[in-house]
Amino acid sequence: MIGEFRIKTDGPGCHDFTSAVADWLTEGGAENGVLTLLVRHTSCSLLIQENADPDVQYDLLNWLGRLVPHTDHPSMHWITHRDEGPDDMSAHLKASVLPVNLSIPVHQSLMMLGQWQGIYLIEHRDAPHERRVAACFQSI
Amino acid sequence: MIGEFRIKTDGPGCHDFTSAVADWLTEGGAENGVLTLLVRHTSCSLLIQENADPDVQYDLLNWLGRLVPHTDHPSMHWITHRDEGPDDMSAHLKASVLPVNLSIPVHQSLMMLGQWQGIYLIEHRDAPHERRVAACFQSI
Amino acid sequence: MIGEFRIKTDGPGCHDFTSAVADWLTEGGAENGVLTLLVRHTSCSLLIQENADPDVQYDLLNWLGRLVPHTDHPSMHWITHRDEGPDDMSAHLKASVLPVNLSIPVHQSLMMLGQWQGIYLIEHRDAPHERRVAACFQSI
Repeated sequence: MIGEFRIKTDGPGCHDFTSAVADWLTEGGAENGVLTLLVRHTSCSLLIQENADPDVQYDLLNWLGRLVPHTDHPSMHWITHRDEGPDDMSAHLKASVLPVNLSIPVHQSLMMLGQWQGIYLIEHRDAPHERRVAACFQSI
Repeated sequence: MIGEFRIKTDGPGCHDFTSAVADWLTEGGAENGVLTLLVRHTSCSLLIQENADPDVQYDLLNWLGRLVPHTDHPSMHWITHRDEGPDDMSAHLKASVLPVNLSIPVHQSLMMLGQWQGIYLIEHRDAPHERRVAACFQSI
Repeated sequence: MIGEFRIKTDGPGCHDFTSAVADWLTEGGAENGVLTLLVRHTSCSLLIQENADPDVQYDLLNWLGRLVPHTDHPSMHWITHRDEGPDDMSAHLKASVLPVNLSIPVHQSLMMLGQWQGIYLIEHRDAPHERRVAACFQSI
């Protein structure tokens, strides 16, 4: 089965949509197979990360901002793509090193995630966006 | 269906092969399912990124070169793998943080990419190479 | 078919489990399709990288440690997630930029890996762990 998730974001952040995905699998009668997710944008990411301590998400966003500063930071003076604002090219760079797609085995209707794993959309842009994630479940 | 793409590169660069993939799906009669791509090398990458402004690709390559300089740069003095030239270990490191495989849902014969997404092979080595990308389309 | 690999680790390292995966495919009678692997943890990674010179793995681990130092390093003073030791948040950050899942086309019972590609579990934590990797093979 094929579908799409829509996620509203409001600046850089980690949006846990694990339960929406789990519900979609259950409602569609998925049993055994593989779930594929693909975010349809080039300035946000998908990520499986810890779902327990929110500090992990806070530190992750902070670290990404230090790894790839906004392009009005002096260290980024050499950037040429500047038409869409100081957060745009840094968003593309973050989106290049974090996943754009995820593939998750499903067993007996449950994603085979570990106990501490959640599925996140990571927003890299400063302004609010509605992000679209394509989904496909394939039975084996 | 299973196939392979061959892409000739000529030093570091971003090679858009989206249309070759789309043609392969169309010619093979693919309708609904998932496309899997895997680059069969450890010193280049696959990436879905913006297909509009070429400056994005230029900045991406520049940023990767700053994140992981060639190993004749003083900051990389601690590197031990040097037999294949100063661009080799940095290529392996870039290839470790960018994707080696992509999974893309296909709906009604079209990849569910966003409007601004293209599929790229990113070459990290300095010399020309012929790169091979394995492909598999699975119907649902 | 669906399965799981268990890999014992003993501090940061690269664990090649390519042959275990190949054996699992052969024993299960896999012929043509796609193999999906998902590591069920948030502080280790999966990676396809060079299987020839062990120096590549040594340099990779060293580079990751320089990219994301342990959080008792002065440069990481701003980290908030500290309850699980100085290696924990750096492990989550490494696990965010390296793959959590891999998708590998299989043709005539063989993974379509390149000659120099091996499948690795990369341990980011200091203490020994038993790591679990979910696996699914889908025939086409």
